[in-house]
Order: sequence, then C-alpha cells, then structure tokens
Amino acid sequence: MIFKERGLLLVLSGPSGVGKGTVCRALREDEDNNLHYSVSCTTRKPREGEIDGVHYFFKTRDEFEHMIENNQLLEHAEFVGNYYGTPVDWVNKILDEGKDVILEIEVQGAMQVKEHFPEAVFLFLAPPSLQELRNRLIGRGTESEEVIKQRLLVAKEEIEMMDAYDYVVTNDEIHKACDRIQAIVTAEHCSRERVASLYKKAMEVK
Amino acid sequence: MIFKERGLLLVLSGPSGVGKGTVCRALREDEDNNLHYSVSCTTRKPREGEIDGVHYFFKTRDEFEHMIENNQLLEHAEFVGNYYGTPVDWVNKILDEGKDVILEIEVQGAMQVKEHFPEAVFLFLAPPSLQELRNRLIGRGTESEEVIKQRLLVAKEEIEMMDAYDYVVTNDEIHKACDRIQAIVTAEHCSRERVASLYKKAMEVK
Repeated sequence: MIFKERGLLLVLSGPSGVGKGTVCRALREDEDNNLHYSVSCTTRKPREGEIDGVHYFFKTRDEFEHMIENNQLLEHAEFVGNYYGTPVDWVNKILDEGKDVILEIEVQGAMQVKEHFPEAVFLFLAPPSLQELRNRLIGRGTESEEVIKQRLLVAKEEIEMMDAYDYVVTNDEIHKACDRIQAIVTAEHCSRERVASLYKKAMEVK
Repeated sequence: MIFKERGLLLVLSGPSGVGKGTVCRALREDEDNNLHYSVSCTTRKPREGEIDGVHYFFKTRDEFEHMIENNQLLEHAEFVGNYYGTPVDWVNKILDEGKDVILEIEVQGAMQVKEHFPEAVFLFLAPPSLQELRNRLIGRGTESEEVIKQRLLVAKEEIEMMDAYDYVVTNDEIHKACDRIQAIVTAEHCSRERVASLYKKAMEVK
C-alpha cells in the first residue's frame, strides 16, 4: 500500500525550562489524538520495571556507536556518561503505518533531526514570558530599564532560535498549547503539497 | 498600535458545486470563531431589506468601474449584467483590527486575489468524490473502465486547480470541513514567520 498517507514527524523543542515534557505528557494522556511517542535508544542500564522496546531500546556502547557511524539515529547526545538517541528505523516504521510521531528534544537535538529529516514539522515551544515582554515593550512599561535590558538579552536569543522552526507555540497554558499543536497536526495533513501528491500518485495507477 | 497582530485573509474556493457556500454558512453560524465575512460591492439594485454596508456595498456602474481602474478590488466578476467584487479597503480595515476575514469565491476570483494579495491563505475545498476515486483506484476497483476514465478526466482538472492553493480541505462532512478550516486558522497564527516577525518588531522598540 504505497499510496497510504504517511504519518508526520513532529519535533517539539524550545528553550530549557519551557515545559516541553509537561506539554508532551498532556498530549500523550489525551486519547483523542493519533500521536505516537518516540522510543529512544540508550546505553544506560534498565531500571526496575523498564522494558526494552517500550521505555527504551537498551544498547551497549559499541552498538550505539555503530548506530551513530551508520546514520541510524535521527539525533543523539551524551548525558552524564550515557548515550541517548532516536532510532531512524523505528520512526520510519511508525510513519509508514500512517501514524504521526512526536519527538520531544532539546534545541541541539532538533537541529540534528533537521539535518537528517528536513521534512519533519518543527515546533518551537515559547515561554509566556516572551509574550509578556512583548506586551510590556509595546504597552506602557512598568519595569526598570535594567530588568527590561536583561530580559531582552534572553528574549533575543530565544527569537534567534526560532528561525529554524516552522511554528511557534506559546506555552501560556498547557491545554491551550496542546490545542494549538493538535491544530497544527490537522493543518499539516491538509497541506496542498501533501494532499495533491497523494492524489497524483493514485492517478498514476491508471 | 502597529505591533498588534494583523488578521489573516482566508480565501475559500474550489470547483463549482463542492459546497463552498454551505461550509461558509456553517462557519458563520459558529460563534466560537473569530472569522469575519467579506462584504462585496455590487452594481445590482438592493433588494427588499438589504442594507448598504451590511449585505453589500451598492455602487453605480461608473463607481464600480472607477474602483476596477484604481485597483480598489481584490477580485471582481460580471454576473448576469451586474458587477460583483471585494473592496480591498474594507478587507484591510478588518485585518488591521486583528480580525480574520474569510472570502468565499470561485476559482477565477481566487486567482485574482492571489495576484493582489499573495499573503492570503488559500484553501481549496475538494469534493469527497476525489477521495472516493482515489480509494477506488488504489483499492479493488468495482467500476467499469469507462466510468473510471470519465471521473479521472474531471479529477485531473481538479488536482491541477489545487496547485495555486496552500491547503486542500476535503468536504466529506460539513462539520469536519469546518473543523479543518479552524485548525488551519489556528496553525497559521502560529506560523514562525508570523510570530517571529511580531516579536522582532516589538524588540526594535528598545
């Protein structure tokens, strides 16, 4: 069934502390969506109750390094002496089943995914402080010059980070951020490139 | 307030008979959205109860032709001896108020809007027959060769039409089509170009 609609790979990232994990958990708990969650590979030892292929794919250091060399990871990072990474085969398998996959990762990881998988949809989760700062800058400012200056430095970095993303989702309230993400998934499934290419492929059969 | 978020112009079009009017009416009746409906100019005489500026902007033929010459219409067409068109000033005024505007027009009109207002979001409403045809072509076909051939001709034209649009919304069920359109509006408000440029403008204040 080569004409079946392939799932979307969504990459949810953003500055540390913005609440990526919380938003991702909320999406996972909502049974109304068709989102599947990435299972990572790791060289860390399994903890009590952790199942290989469910919580993680557990790998030896040699196996993991072999995967890196053979481009079998969408992204990877080392964290307190252990490797963590996203296996490309697993992601492709789920996408081929027509399911959407969501990957929650740090900014550096997201940029690695962009290199290996540019057709993914990149979502930048933005802190509400950015929105507040914006409102304050364009409204009547009540903060001191010094406070505003400091915030502007952080904000400028965050805004520069956005450039590599397709969407910016403000995490003002978790349920609102989740609704926006689900709307983006629906919209992306309606994108003309996607729908028209499916029709064109079907027409070629005749 | 130059940094206020400007509304989106949505152009809903598609082959004749696909149900553009019905979908647009359903969106209009739903009070949950922020969509505003375009008021057209026309040279047709007002009917009983029709109010200038509410149902139409009523114009003389001279006034209308003057608007065409001065590029004051996003699109226009002549229909049984009367002109109909969308006044660009009115649309810009509503967008500047931060409201989204939806315009329901024929394919030719949509292409005129694209010329005058390329930043609009173009939605192609697709007949469910296209989806059914696709399923039949890739599944087990039960129709005769002749029927399939005839449908393919129509489908090819429809698929070619799609090329100028940003999204394809299948009108399988009215409420589903409306949900998809609302999701597209939400997603477009999260587009990185849009959000990042608003932040960048706000930062320039300092």
